[in-house]
Amino acid sequence: MRNIKLTIAYEGTAYNGFQRQMNGIGIQQILEVRLAKMFGHELKIYGAGRTDTGVHAYGQVVNFMTSGTIPTARIAIGSRSLLPHDIVITEAREVDEKFHAQFAATSKIYIYKIYPHVLPNPFLRNYAWHIWRKLNISAMQEAAQIMIGTHDFSAFRAAGGAAISPVRTIMTADCQFVNEMLELSFWGTGFLYHMVRNLTGTLVDVGLGARTARDFKAILDSRERKKAGITAPAHGLYLKEVKY
Amino acid sequence: MRNIKLTIAYEGTAYNGFQRQMNGIGIQQILEVRLAKMFGHELKIYGAGRTDTGVHAYGQVVNFMTSGTIPTARIAIGSRSLLPHDIVITEAREVDEKFHAQFAATSKIYIYKIYPHVLPNPFLRNYAWHIWRKLNISAMQEAAQIMIGTHDFSAFRAAGGAAISPVRTIMTADCQFVNEMLELSFWGTGFLYHMVRNLTGTLVDVGLGARTARDFKAILDSRERKKAGITAPAHGLYLKEVKY
Repeated sequence: MRNIKLTIAYEGTAYNGFQRQMNGIGIQQILEVRLAKMFGHELKIYGAGRTDTGVHAYGQVVNFMTSGTIPTARIAIGSRSLLPHDIVITEAREVDEKFHAQFAATSKIYIYKIYPHVLPNPFLRNYAWHIWRKLNISAMQEAAQIMIGTHDFSAFRAAGGAAISPVRTIMTADCQFVNEMLELSFWGTGFLYHMVRNLTGTLVDVGLGARTARDFKAILDSRERKKAGITAPAHGLYLKEVKY
Repeated sequence: MRNIKLTIAYEGTAYNGFQRQMNGIGIQQILEVRLAKMFGHELKIYGAGRTDTGVHAYGQVVNFMTSGTIPTARIAIGSRSLLPHDIVITEAREVDEKFHAQFAATSKIYIYKIYPHVLPNPFLRNYAWHIWRKLNISAMQEAAQIMIGTHDFSAFRAAGGAAISPVRTIMTADCQFVNEMLELSFWGTGFLYHMVRNLTGTLVDVGLGARTARDFKAILDSRERKKAGITAPAHGLYLKEVKY
């Protein structure tokens, strides 16, 4: 048996998240069905982490065990005609049999894209959060720095998250323009359920002047979810990279 | 009555073209229904040109007559909450009563986007033609120059086009990389039905080595549609600008 690690990019709009949660189709399910055809046997896909409905990925990572004979170097190319156009395997590598996409992950990078312009852009409606009011980017950048380090992130945790400990470590948090898009990036050892979207919602409050960077610190310290801002919409969020 | 000229951007994936052709909803129809609500009376939208199902626009132009009182400067902002997210009015101006978006147009610019990479990009599946084989860009650029000038474009005209004369003038034609995307641009006095997509299909044949720039010239001179290449898919095409 080979243990295969895949890096996957997907446009999440059409799916009910990575792991099917209720009705609808999950990306994991698509991969299991289509790769079973390719390898000639049923298989189980292990993902590095869930993404919600509408959330995208540049670099989701999964692994699966196979007794099939397709050379590893042929998997990405061979999957082109098998997978729907919104799911793409960008890399395939054979890894140690002990490798598990979720449990071996040491950190993840998420990107949240905001389109801060008076008029919406019809080509970005599923790819960025449109904010038409003026944002104070330096205030957002100042607030973002507050989350760096090891903290109890209960204030930014959705009800229903399964993790036992609310403590996470953020290595870097940034807020920068990339062309006409404002990109927030979060590199951390792990993230609670909805944590990036809740952090983003609160950072946008800071950008709009509804809260200050000092308020942001008070919210984090309070550990109370009800003090933080709204959950930013799913369609601006991207799982950029999983590190091992 | 005021005559209002609108510049409109849209993501054409969900619509049955600008002007409804058979079943489904056209963008013109959406504009007529939503703007009628805004202005308080029925109105007729005149478009600069049709775009087919799946074709996009950065700068489609339309005009309509209104007796409504909404200030012209408020139209773009006011339409944000009225229009679906894939149709955006980017500019509104009051123009002379004689202005007609189609008949006053002197030239148009179309862009055709190609994503030339071995692996597809899930975020571009509705926005560019994915070509995974290697393209010879300089051969394509050489062939593109052949169309510049005034020619009978019958070889690149779809059956069913309504225009009487197949003669059109192309001012510039280009084939250039813009970041990771290959963009073909066509600036001309007018275009026959499917002309840009047929030119693109034949330029791609040149890029793939199936034809030469000399073949391209022979096809143009032959005026025979059956000698040209395939019609490139609609989802790579953008109406960029209409000039007056």
